[in-house]
Amino acid sequence: MPLIAAATGATPSRRPVWFMRQAGRSLPEYREIRAGRGMLESCFEAELVAEITMQPVRRHDTDAAILFSDIVVPLRAAGIDLDIVAGTGPVIASPIRTAADVAGMPRLDPSSVGAVTSAIGMIIDELPDEKALIGFAGAPFTLASYLIEGGPSRTYERTKAMMLAEPDLWHSFMGRIADITIAFLRAQLDAGVDALQLFDSWAGALSKAQYDEYVAPHSARVMAEVAEYGVPRIHFGVGTGELLNSMTDVGVEVIGVDWRIPLDEAADRVGHRVAIQGNLDPTVLLAGDDAVLEREIDKVVAAGERAIAAGTPGHIFNLGHGVMPNTDAGAVTRAVELIHAL
Amino acid sequence: MPLIAAATGATPSRRPVWFMRQAGRSLPEYREIRAGRGMLESCFEAELVAEITMQPVRRHDTDAAILFSDIVVPLRAAGIDLDIVAGTGPVIASPIRTAADVAGMPRLDPSSVGAVTSAIGMIIDELPDEKALIGFAGAPFTLASYLIEGGPSRTYERTKAMMLAEPDLWHSFMGRIADITIAFLRAQLDAGVDALQLFDSWAGALSKAQYDEYVAPHSARVMAEVAEYGVPRIHFGVGTGELLNSMTDVGVEVIGVDWRIPLDEAADRVGHRVAIQGNLDPTVLLAGDDAVLEREIDKVVAAGERAIAAGTPGHIFNLGHGVMPNTDAGAVTRAVELIHAL
Repeated sequence: MPLIAAATGATPSRRPVWFMRQAGRSLPEYREIRAGRGMLESCFEAELVAEITMQPVRRHDTDAAILFSDIVVPLRAAGIDLDIVAGTGPVIASPIRTAADVAGMPRLDPSSVGAVTSAIGMIIDELPDEKALIGFAGAPFTLASYLIEGGPSRTYERTKAMMLAEPDLWHSFMGRIADITIAFLRAQLDAGVDALQLFDSWAGALSKAQYDEYVAPHSARVMAEVAEYGVPRIHFGVGTGELLNSMTDVGVEVIGVDWRIPLDEAADRVGHRVAIQGNLDPTVLLAGDDAVLEREIDKVVAAGERAIAAGTPGHIFNLGHGVMPNTDAGAVTRAVELIHAL
Repeated sequence: MPLIAAATGATPSRRPVWFMRQAGRSLPEYREIRAGRGMLESCFEAELVAEITMQPVRRHDTDAAILFSDIVVPLRAAGIDLDIVAGTGPVIASPIRTAADVAGMPRLDPSSVGAVTSAIGMIIDELPDEKALIGFAGAPFTLASYLIEGGPSRTYERTKAMMLAEPDLWHSFMGRIADITIAFLRAQLDAGVDALQLFDSWAGALSKAQYDEYVAPHSARVMAEVAEYGVPRIHFGVGTGELLNSMTDVGVEVIGVDWRIPLDEAADRVGHRVAIQGNLDPTVLLAGDDAVLEREIDKVVAAGERAIAAGTPGHIFNLGHGVMPNTDAGAVTRAVELIHAL
């Protein structure tokens, strides 16, 4: 598998590429199959999950499928009352803010994500041998931010207030979330995913000092608890230029990079210890101009090659964040062709 | 004036401190005076502007007043149909996206911001001699993002699409916005402000390469066109760790830093060429814990002192972004006391 080769310092048979949120609204076939079905319920229907996961692989010939799911799926499966509201994001019915709330946090029984593990079996049956299936979960900090704020936030003010003013409560809470994340990842690994990505999407809201003290120990425990499976572990967040080293230190094989930092510079920052993934600005796919697409892809590929020449074990092409919903599917297909042709 | 001393490499008589958005919802007297009045209309009532500008200086004893206004005020004054919607932000009636839209961009007649310049006169009359009045404007990129997207955005997708796919149109548009920004700043400088801050709040959404090519030339022109006034020029954006050098290169005396980067590291990055401003995480004021407040202020002050010891001309204490609306005013007063006592 080219993706696994690039992640582990081997030589891939072709330049591996996949896109965060490649399964989603940019695809007409996705919009059709999702019509009239809620996001969260869709994540608990095994056949639908498998079908949606496969759609972008069939259409774009990406080198990996990423499980169609959402970072709040294991929280819902554990029994937390929440929904994913179109146009808003996750909304938590009763935000978790007190010691009693934290003490009442449920645990994840792997059988409650049976739809996800069944879907993984179906995907593996269909997926060509050379393509990897990537499992994923939300990292404790990003999940904590939703659970504490009650939904998406621009400021993370209650989250940081708990972190700073009630560190014992914070660490206990993060530990409980990490338990759920670990159980969810292990269920996916037991079902056979080839790699995993831990999304700490909003970690970039933190300073390095905050990340190291309040977040890193919990993400490190997640990574340690899945290490025995021996699959590549990818770690990604947005706006994490200051955190790349810390996010590598938690124990990963691949560090994801957003578009703000050239890949070779990011690779230098982490001392070429791990493979890199990224980092085309997702808006480039929206610009509607083939020459721009080609030029910007060239830049990312060239930076990846400079990183490898300097000692980085490999480069997995991706965006710097997810495919935006109103991206034209044709532009995504074209991007994959260009990347594979280079 | 301690603020001007710190900005210009002299020795301030005390450690200067002010807070972005110090005039605003955190103050009971602000909520009272704004009751029943829209944000935008308030910015065009000279006496109200002067009163609101003075409120935090009286209550907290900060070393500077910052003009109560909004970055879209000069756009509205120039004739662009927009409003500031509570809980949302600026909303533009007819977003600017085509060559015809750009050609139709109005210019700013300084007389249309007469309320602002009158307010400045009133503030100067009341402000104690040792306190600075800071004028401000939005930088062309951040204003462009509102005008193109039609309001606040998390992705800046249309903005970046124009930038990437229609660079000539983009530069022409940015030039027209820069004209308005320059006219607005010159009006404030003519009225007597002691310093100015250019807010490129959302520049952190860009890579350094994007910033350097599409944004820096226009911000540099703004800075050059106000240089003759000889007042300190402060430049600030959120999440700009990768951009600090570029944002300094446009021609400033002070670089503002958000909370993601320790001040001494930020100062190193810009080669100690300019004074630094920042960078307490605004959520620290919300944590509701005096010991945390003191500890975090100590860290910022210590980093500022290390920067100065390494050659940086000065440090102006501030937050890493604005005061959040539900901050307790007492915590802000306490912060100023702590900073002045250190």
